Amino acid sequence: MSAEEPILLTPGPLTTSMRVKQAMLRDWGSRDEAFVALNRHVIGQIARIAGCDESYAVVPLQGSGTYAVEAMIATLAPTDGRTLVLANGSYGRRIVEICRRLGRNHDVYEVPEDETHDMAELGRRLAEDPGIRAVAAVHCETTSGLLNPLQAISDVVVKAGRALLVDSMSGFGALPVDAGQLRFAALAASANKCLQGAPGVAFVICRKADLATSKGRSPSLVLDLEDQHRQMTTDGQWRYTPPTHVIAALGAAIDELVEEGGSEARLRRYTANCDTLITGMQELGFRPVLPRERQAPVIVSFFEPQDAWFDFTTFYDLLRQRGFAIYAGKMKQGGTFRIGTIGAIDPQTIAAFLVAAGDVVSEMRRGH
Amino acid sequence: MSAEEPILLTPGPLTTSMRVKQAMLRDWGSRDEAFVALNRHVIGQIARIAGCDESYAVVPLQGSGTYAVEAMIATLAPTDGRTLVLANGSYGRRIVEICRRLGRNHDVYEVPEDETHDMAELGRRLAEDPGIRAVAAVHCETTSGLLNPLQAISDVVVKAGRALLVDSMSGFGALPVDAGQLRFAALAASANKCLQGAPGVAFVICRKADLATSKGRSPSLVLDLEDQHRQMTTDGQWRYTPPTHVIAALGAAIDELVEEGGSEARLRRYTANCDTLITGMQELGFRPVLPRERQAPVIVSFFEPQDAWFDFTTFYDLLRQRGFAIYAGKMKQGGTFRIGTIGAIDPQTIAAFLVAAGDVVSEMRRGH
Repeated sequence: MSAEEPILLTPGPLTTSMRVKQAMLRDWGSRDEAFVALNRHVIGQIARIAGCDESYAVVPLQGSGTYAVEAMIATLAPTDGRTLVLANGSYGRRIVEICRRLGRNHDVYEVPEDETHDMAELGRRLAEDPGIRAVAAVHCETTSGLLNPLQAISDVVVKAGRALLVDSMSGFGALPVDAGQLRFAALAASANKCLQGAPGVAFVICRKADLATSKGRSPSLVLDLEDQHRQMTTDGQWRYTPPTHVIAALGAAIDELVEEGGSEARLRRYTANCDTLITGMQELGFRPVLPRERQAPVIVSFFEPQDAWFDFTTFYDLLRQRGFAIYAGKMKQGGTFRIGTIGAIDPQTIAAFLVAAGDVVSEMRRGH
Repeated sequence: MSAEEPILLTPGPLTTSMRVKQAMLRDWGSRDEAFVALNRHVIGQIARIAGCDESYAVVPLQGSGTYAVEAMIATLAPTDGRTLVLANGSYGRRIVEICRRLGRNHDVYEVPEDETHDMAELGRRLAEDPGIRAVAAVHCETTSGLLNPLQAISDVVVKAGRALLVDSMSGFGALPVDAGQLRFAALAASANKCLQGAPGVAFVICRKADLATSKGRSPSLVLDLEDQHRQMTTDGQWRYTPPTHVIAALGAAIDELVEEGGSEARLRRYTANCDTLITGMQELGFRPVLPRERQAPVIVSFFEPQDAWFDFTTFYDLLRQRGFAIYAGKMKQGGTFRIGTIGAIDPQTIAAFLVAAGDVVSEMRRGH
């Protein structure tokens, strides 16, 4: 770690391996067979990670994760009914904003940012309101680090015969995602979170049958997943210039994931990172916002100490000088900050961070 | 050049320098001051290249160039009047498709793909139809390689008091773009054409006054340039995860452009590439589609020889084995193919290509 190029303890862009970055040292012709083969490899591997059968398509999309979420809503959220959005953080509320912008009818079931939704209440809403045709949910709410009970949500939604649309941005690649179990209609994720690729490409995994009936539904040309998928299945090529280097990085990142032992092994490493972090931070006097059972091993929110010596900007800057970049808080209640536990880092990295954090706390207390 | 990693004689993704690619060997925290400073540098340099004064903003956007074009139309094309689209190729027709999808009222003035628009006719249409509030034009039509007379178009549009929206995707960075002369309302371009960066980020240069009056106009959240600009001027940060590595590559690419001597020097190099290519291909018996005065030094369309020995796929494959990737044709009339003259290549590269092309032609003639 260095002040010049810090370890990123953030929810992404995050620290990637040198092998992933070195995969970007080549130019690819976007219509060349070698690049078409690379895309096939990446798409096939994502389908495997998600446990997809032939009824699902993986549709890659240029842009950040939010582009994929908007593309999912624009292409697949119903126009002949409403989408119920489950919100308990910024990313759930962002789906609401996307629906609002697109003029897609929706309702919101919102609970506090440190709570999960009541499954009985969700079931009741679906039973009472046939106009709700789909439910949109966030897998891991990066706002707080909260893990939503995706399987339980799926069980209620699928049982009620509704379509489940998932934002699994900061979950996919580590948290369990099995299309056979979750039976989602669509799931959006990105290259640059638990897959540990570079940012710039995202994707939506969705049912081919739903794509077939959504032709022309998206008011956006570039975000039209049906059009994107149709072109790619015709000749293996992207409609518009793909981020070739970023896709090559994703290919290398997925190869690393397989070599690590897949999502399960990665989840174990992230869980070890998270456990090490929480234990160490508690020893330094910091308190996590969420109870452990609602905490995803992706990013952890801590309360800012309400002591005169603490100031987040100083804390950030002093850690940054020691080679670590942490993340500001995003929760409504304020007075929190975040530390990520994903990327090409391990418990030794977290241990080194904790040494630095201990030094910084001592320095700040002394300086006060 | 090698069969493994060919020289890309395409309109992008194109061959970039090793320095540009090596700029991607670092991870950046997207909210870190070092990255905020990098963005400021890139945005400031783009504004300088475009000759912008303080009345213009440079709004970067995740995605390919078409994302920037759609964002420009979604955010800035009028809703209280129509946009007249000047089309003479696929990229002009793509603007029409974007308007249609977005439900933005528009007319089309289309001419054949090897012709430019009649300025008197454009002036007449604007004079007779006050409902036309904006004109959208393509700078270089990559479909054919045709250079549209952007200054002449601007003179007519600005004199008529209408807003000019420009797709300068494959022109910006080499073809002259001076905001003071062209007086465009908005101009969209990308990192990966004449700027010689990596694909994955694009931008729109537009009047701050127009952004101020376009709040909420875009039906897309992610493509909303007003929202993107407002966030970036508030704290220098992107709304959604930026493609950090690609932006670092763009920073290096712009530094190279400045060192080369700016857009004028780059245009001289591309013109030399283009002259060398056309002369050499003519000597091999190939005929360019466009007359030289309408040919942009960006990409050249050639007629396929109507001889039994010629077959494009074989021609492509044999060139590819010799380390060069060329491009299929896109013109309506068919029977053409394209060779790009932009990227980190020079007349020596083109000369090497011509030797390879000569060998391939001989082999194909012999083989027939």
